[in-house]
Amino acid sequence: MTPVQKVQALLQDRFPGLMGVEMTEVTQDRVCATLRVRPELCTGGEILHGGAIMAFADTLGAIGTVINMPEGARTATIESKTNFIGGARVDTTVHGEATPIHKGKTTQVWQTRVTGADGKLVGIVTQTQIVMAK
Amino acid sequence: MTPVQKVQALLQDRFPGLMGVEMTEVTQDRVCATLRVRPELCTGGEILHGGAIMAFADTLGAIGTVINMPEGARTATIESKTNFIGGARVDTTVHGEATPIHKGKTTQVWQTRVTGADGKLVGIVTQTQIVMAK
Amino acid sequence: MTPVQKVQALLQDRFPGLMGVEMTEVTQDRVCATLRVRPELCTGGEILHGGAIMAFADTLGAIGTVINMPEGARTATIESKTNFIGGARVDTTVHGEATPIHKGKTTQVWQTRVTGADGKLVGIVTQTQIVMAK
Amino acid sequence: MTPVQKVQALLQDRFPGLMGVEMTEVTQDRVCATLRVRPELCTGGEILHGGAIMAFADTLGAIGTVINMPEGARTATIESKTNFIGGARVDTTVHGEATPIHKGKTTQVWQTRVTGADGKLVGIVTQTQIVMAK
Repeated sequence: MTPVQKVQALLQDRFPGLMGVEMTEVTQDRVCATLRVRPELCTGGEILHGGAIMAFADTLGAIGTVINMPEGARTATIESKTNFIGGARVDTTVHGEATPIHKGKTTQVWQTRVTGADGKLVGIVTQTQIVMAK
Repeated sequence: MTPVQKVQALLQDRFPGLMGVEMTEVTQDRVCATLRVRPELCTGGEILHGGAIMAFADTLGAIGTVINMPEGARTATIESKTNFIGGARVDTTVHGEATPIHKGKTTQVWQTRVTGADGKLVGIVTQTQIVMAK
Repeated sequence: MTPVQKVQALLQDRFPGLMGVEMTEVTQDRVCATLRVRPELCTGGEILHGGAIMAFADTLGAIGTVINMPEGARTATIESKTNFIGGARVDTTVHGEATPIHKGKTTQVWQTRVTGADGKLVGIVTQTQIVMAK
Repeated sequence: MTPVQKVQALLQDRFPGLMGVEMTEVTQDRVCATLRVRPELCTGGEILHGGAIMAFADTLGAIGTVINMPEGARTATIESKTNFIGGARVDTTVHGEATPIHKGKTTQVWQTRVTGADGKLVGIVTQTQIVMAK
């Protein structure tokens, strides 16, 4: 299995699987995925729920951390901050791209840009992952 | 219908409905709900996904804003910040309580505490809602 | 020296001293101080600069952490989030009160409310401190 | 006077002037400045106080907003989030570079990278400015 397939398999029976996150790239310096804006991911006005945007990004930042940490270590998101910029309409697809701001021994910081089908920014998420040695 | 029932009905076919958010209190100074930690809301290790915590809280803060804004106005979350404190295990139920920090004409700021079955803090979310006049 | 005097002495030749932070209470569950809004702490419009609000709060949250951590340990702020609610006018005094959200072994989370002379909220700051064992 | 000189003159008797912020570039898509890490801007351990980092960045993001908003409009920072990555030692100089994430009619979002003399990241600040029409 490719790294993308391995990660996809791990997500399947979990929250990202329920949402429909589809991994497209998993490397140490970039983690990407797409998310189809199904009606059940929306809020009023038929736009993607802010919570879905945050959950989508959180998934990518956590994967980025896992890919970079020593074997046997564990990680958890300790804080996350989102700025919501534009709406993503139902029946479109959003794209998420997570890149590292900091890869430390005890913490990693990742930033994820979520963009719409037209390339416009939907939201930007910055999160801190704590890394616990085995 | 009571305010709780009205809000519950609105959530049903949307992302909070998919997650299983159950409203328990809707007043102008407090919005509460519960969320069952089903396996499909979890991340690795069988604990509630951080994204689900953020989406749960975002829902409550937005409802709090809607309840307080003038008729015909619209709102959107413009930013949200979460500190994750403890894990919530699968097959338990978490409780969310959102209270206002600021109710202004153009913005409202709400803070939501998510706690576990044992009353321990799972996470705390602070979000800003912009209010747009009709 | 009382705890308040000890902390005040430490701050004197540092940034909080330059700003004029005056400690008023230092306990394990609450750290308070006042800050006189001198003209050189202001921004345009003669209101307290947002940066001064954040620096004031950061100081209190860090002190709260130090007071609670094991002897010999060190701490650093790893992230901080502020919501600015109201302005504090020049020649008034603001009050800061920091209380703990979480006191863990590796991280502590503190929240500081900054209020004006009239008791109204000026800003609210939540910060995470990492604690490094000796 | 150049834009840099105009902005510098405005800052002089205010908090950024007290700190010693030196503007180096002021354009609609990038605002840069330097800050000398004098001892009185430090915290324990002779490193730049986190509050000074936040105040430095807040200044740049606010200037970026002013440069882009319609004449007669006013702005205020409504929220700010910082991740602290590395320390900046006393008697060095840090550099700040603010770039826009979003330039809207009612809000602007700016992100500022603060780097040390060696080019390493000291902190990253994301802030939302509200824009009020005349």
